[in-house]
Amino acid sequence: MQISNELRAMIGRRRPGYSLEAPFYRDKEVFDLDMDVIFGRHWIYVGVEPDIPEPGDYFTVPLGRTSVVVVRDDDMTIRAFHNVCRHRGARLCDGDKGSVGNVVCPYHQWTYDLRGNLIHTEHMGEGFDRSQFSLKTVHVGNVAGLLFICLADEPPADFEQMRREMEPYILPHRISDCKIAYEEDLIENGNWKFTMENNRECYHCKANHPELTVSLYEFGFGYQPSPENAEEVHAFRELIEREHARWESCGLPSVELEFLDSRATAFRTERLPLDKAGESQTMNSKVACQKLLGDLTQRNLGGLSFWTQPNSWHHFMSDHIVTFSVLPIDPERTLLRTKWLVHKDAVEGRDYDPKELSEVWHATNKQDGSLVERTQIGSQSAAYQPGPYSPYTEELVEKFMSWYFKRLRTETGQESAIVSPFAASA
Amino acid sequence: MQISNELRAMIGRRRPGYSLEAPFYRDKEVFDLDMDVIFGRHWIYVGVEPDIPEPGDYFTVPLGRTSVVVVRDDDMTIRAFHNVCRHRGARLCDGDKGSVGNVVCPYHQWTYDLRGNLIHTEHMGEGFDRSQFSLKTVHVGNVAGLLFICLADEPPADFEQMRREMEPYILPHRISDCKIAYEEDLIENGNWKFTMENNRECYHCKANHPELTVSLYEFGFGYQPSPENAEEVHAFRELIEREHARWESCGLPSVELEFLDSRATAFRTERLPLDKAGESQTMNSKVACQKLLGDLTQRNLGGLSFWTQPNSWHHFMSDHIVTFSVLPIDPERTLLRTKWLVHKDAVEGRDYDPKELSEVWHATNKQDGSLVERTQIGSQSAAYQPGPYSPYTEELVEKFMSWYFKRLRTETGQESAIVSPFAASA
Amino acid sequence: MQISNELRAMIGRRRPGYSLEAPFYRDKEVFDLDMDVIFGRHWIYVGVEPDIPEPGDYFTVPLGRTSVVVVRDDDMTIRAFHNVCRHRGARLCDGDKGSVGNVVCPYHQWTYDLRGNLIHTEHMGEGFDRSQFSLKTVHVGNVAGLLFICLADEPPADFEQMRREMEPYILPHRISDCKIAYEEDLIENGNWKFTMENNRECYHCKANHPELTVSLYEFGFGYQPSPENAEEVHAFRELIEREHARWESCGLPSVELEFLDSRATAFRTERLPLDKAGESQTMNSKVACQKLLGDLTQRNLGGLSFWTQPNSWHHFMSDHIVTFSVLPIDPERTLLRTKWLVHKDAVEGRDYDPKELSEVWHATNKQDGSLVERTQIGSQSAAYQPGPYSPYTEELVEKFMSWYFKRLRTETGQESAIVSPFAASA
Repeated sequence: MQISNELRAMIGRRRPGYSLEAPFYRDKEVFDLDMDVIFGRHWIYVGVEPDIPEPGDYFTVPLGRTSVVVVRDDDMTIRAFHNVCRHRGARLCDGDKGSVGNVVCPYHQWTYDLRGNLIHTEHMGEGFDRSQFSLKTVHVGNVAGLLFICLADEPPADFEQMRREMEPYILPHRISDCKIAYEEDLIENGNWKFTMENNRECYHCKANHPELTVSLYEFGFGYQPSPENAEEVHAFRELIEREHARWESCGLPSVELEFLDSRATAFRTERLPLDKAGESQTMNSKVACQKLLGDLTQRNLGGLSFWTQPNSWHHFMSDHIVTFSVLPIDPERTLLRTKWLVHKDAVEGRDYDPKELSEVWHATNKQDGSLVERTQIGSQSAAYQPGPYSPYTEELVEKFMSWYFKRLRTETGQESAIVSPFAASA
Repeated sequence: MQISNELRAMIGRRRPGYSLEAPFYRDKEVFDLDMDVIFGRHWIYVGVEPDIPEPGDYFTVPLGRTSVVVVRDDDMTIRAFHNVCRHRGARLCDGDKGSVGNVVCPYHQWTYDLRGNLIHTEHMGEGFDRSQFSLKTVHVGNVAGLLFICLADEPPADFEQMRREMEPYILPHRISDCKIAYEEDLIENGNWKFTMENNRECYHCKANHPELTVSLYEFGFGYQPSPENAEEVHAFRELIEREHARWESCGLPSVELEFLDSRATAFRTERLPLDKAGESQTMNSKVACQKLLGDLTQRNLGGLSFWTQPNSWHHFMSDHIVTFSVLPIDPERTLLRTKWLVHKDAVEGRDYDPKELSEVWHATNKQDGSLVERTQIGSQSAAYQPGPYSPYTEELVEKFMSWYFKRLRTETGQESAIVSPFAASA
Repeated sequence: MQISNELRAMIGRRRPGYSLEAPFYRDKEVFDLDMDVIFGRHWIYVGVEPDIPEPGDYFTVPLGRTSVVVVRDDDMTIRAFHNVCRHRGARLCDGDKGSVGNVVCPYHQWTYDLRGNLIHTEHMGEGFDRSQFSLKTVHVGNVAGLLFICLADEPPADFEQMRREMEPYILPHRISDCKIAYEEDLIENGNWKFTMENNRECYHCKANHPELTVSLYEFGFGYQPSPENAEEVHAFRELIEREHARWESCGLPSVELEFLDSRATAFRTERLPLDKAGESQTMNSKVACQKLLGDLTQRNLGGLSFWTQPNSWHHFMSDHIVTFSVLPIDPERTLLRTKWLVHKDAVEGRDYDPKELSEVWHATNKQDGSLVERTQIGSQSAAYQPGPYSPYTEELVEKFMSWYFKRLRTETGQESAIVSPFAASA
């Protein structure tokens, strides 16, 4: 899309290590650019295989005013289409989820098969060439059961690299053998970048997340040793080393991978120890589901975390998985979609209680939503100006922003020469 | 109004036979142009004589952010004024309907008579020339009891032609001897052109309107014979011929008139057979009011339909009349105002039950509203592109759009050379 | 801020003595200019000393999307700050009122003292210079207990003049010895200038304010003698003369001061007689609080009124004070904040009943809110055009508008040559 000179200048003058100028969190032009360049040309995490276990199962993904249907075909292939009839533009599939034989438009019954082919239309005449009116396809990527889509004609090719690198980490938790035990949509009253900034640091955890910090060590979330916390960070790093050795010996890859700056399909992962019982992100740090995932037999496996840019994070424990996708609604509202997965053979009431399972992140999401809203409101004040990220706790926030501006500049044809503001301290 | 080059280009490149580019259904600039050119310079259907039977009775008409008062003067003349005080701009008349002696502004009691003359003001001094501050008048047109307004200084002159042509059709149903038995405002979450597109075809009726299609033959609503339905359309045309002969012999003009392309004040009419008992658009296709309209004595008169551009449709049966006006609220919301009329001497509870009377169109309106919303939502997706109208069932949709663009081009000074995309097939 | 040529032209062509063109009451560009030039560079009335009697007490002021905290420091100094954390822009203080030791940002616990100094931050490193990240200060002005703020770096200097002139009028009512007995926020669905226009005339009082006009003589509110009301205005002026003599002899300055045109910090004041018992603006015109203010011993002191531009008015009686601030929310919504004050030693239930105390202005505010909404709605009609202010009753409306345009022109660098349209009649 064409962008104004004002926006081009604002992209050009972004000061590394600082939060953004207010229009980045509010203006429609920026939002439209975000939806075009970031959400329109990158791999977006949207759901998991267990969302659509059977042929004909579908779920819908809202991205701004665009809607995508992800569906499982009769041959078990997962496909995605734009949720728009090619006749007069009616929304095809309603609701978050459902199951269909074919996709039939409720308006005039134009009928598409699960490959998106238009297979039936009344009243269009004999000369009508249905092959010109297939549903518009959307690319689907699958990382060990985590489903990504890409709206671009030519998606970033480095998805394949991420898939190869991440599969050994995730496969032991066997997503395809899971079921969704609980899910929750939360609308946060803030720009999607505030949601992401909030997720990329744990500087705010101690004071805001009493439930989460029962099990979570904040140090694993982008902390650098500082005069204040050098000792604790050091102790945590020793703990990591010990645990990594233990987990790797069980065949669980654990070491940190980080490709946040250099790739279009950017991610970070690491298996991190949990505090106390060390088993799961729960109120007592013990497993919330008695039936463990896949063939796992040990409970105290900590949590494998996986963060992607622009829009997701995931935590894999021995007993359950929590997975989050960030879906922008408009410049000042964002949908946070959270799903809790357990082994498909786990029995509700016996092996797990959905409320206990979801208690920590249900509370944490609400707390984060209110922090995001607080930042949205504050940043719209005439007095707001970008402030400095902490070099010891907000490095991953800066990495997210650095990636964001690199992507904007690349895709809008501005040169890119970003230097990490934390190069010296890191 | 001035329009942007983008909009001018978009008007210029409209592809006949296809739905419109998304901005036509959403953008504020298009909406403002629609309110200026279409709703500001054409005859707009707004209500019926029985809305204001007595001197001093008024009703208000919302058109975007503009409000018009239609009032019956003491000499029974029907007049219309802008609903704005000439002092400091206060809205004068509240609510949908009411009755007044003079129009007194609630703010500072500036007082206007029913001809719009400012007849009383306190505190304005002796030199104040009240004649300069009359209410701004709005033109009123009356077709056998159907009331139209035109906001332009010089309304399209061909209204008179429509009046002359339509009166013989409508007069036998004697609107001025009717009363309003039921009325209903429905806000549709879509652009007004989606409401009109939806009304101009019955391609969607079979699958969406179980109540309406009890009595309605879809073929009467712009169908052309196709390989699929040639037989049924042929049979229906024979039925029409027989019925027209019968009705004309009773003094009821029935033959189709269609002036949808060539005139500013565009319309179509035809008396159409109804299915089953053939009497009325009801759940059992029989009359819903035992007292027939005017001097009618036969029940099975089918339904006289009357469609106008840009904003109305009407069905006249032997026992009751249903009349619809489409009033844009903003780019994505439209008010559909529906009124059911019966003979003024019909007694509620004995001759008719308002619920039974309104059941079919109450349900149909709700169904249409949801289809309009579905199209509004879908068309705002980044993936939407204009799709093809059916040449066999959506010819009247194309005629509406062809008229719409002809009017936009004429009124914005662009040349107009529109060729019907269905010329060959029709 | 940069303004468009259209707005510049509209400011230039404003017709004195007439209400404004519609965009002044609706457009975002005008609203942004109002927030920048009028609310950003003038003294804005926001509250009273009794809002924050104790050290650490604060109240927040919403001005469009900006929020300001007014706080009492430990040394009893009243200070104001922008309510925005200098870290990542979070809103600091929630709600309308509260009490704090320091201001601690809920997000990452950046901590500011009550002078706005950043005194504590975790994880920012040793080289971090906290002195660069103090809260942004806002100027505070205090007129005998009425608190004003100014967002500009260099506030209009003539505030000092107003303070000197007004203190003798207000001090006898001793605001600092009052408490807030009742307060109320009302959101009016209209532009803030409609709220102000409405307040600057009593032309609408008789027909709209049955409760207020029990005690209020409309003549005191900007009336000029006209042929219609010369006699009443004359009688009222004689009454004023007698009462002023009586009140001045008690040491209560009463004579009108008016600086509405010539100053940036514009105001008007006068002590005005009340009707009937003449004691207070209540339903029976008698005091609503048995304990009188300050050292006052007489009940029938009429009402000292104090109006400021752009955003306040106040009425001081012997027993209570009512004080109003007008705070724009967006182009079409305005917050009217009203507080009722009584002597701090008055006992609720014995000396006063909050409901009785607030009854008149609670009702009057609601009536005014509905008039403002009526004007907002009406003025957005395509047919609206500016109408004439009454030279006999709306002179203060014109003075407000004349000041408004003078300020816009001065601050946007347009020359200013405004002639009062009422020069001859006044």
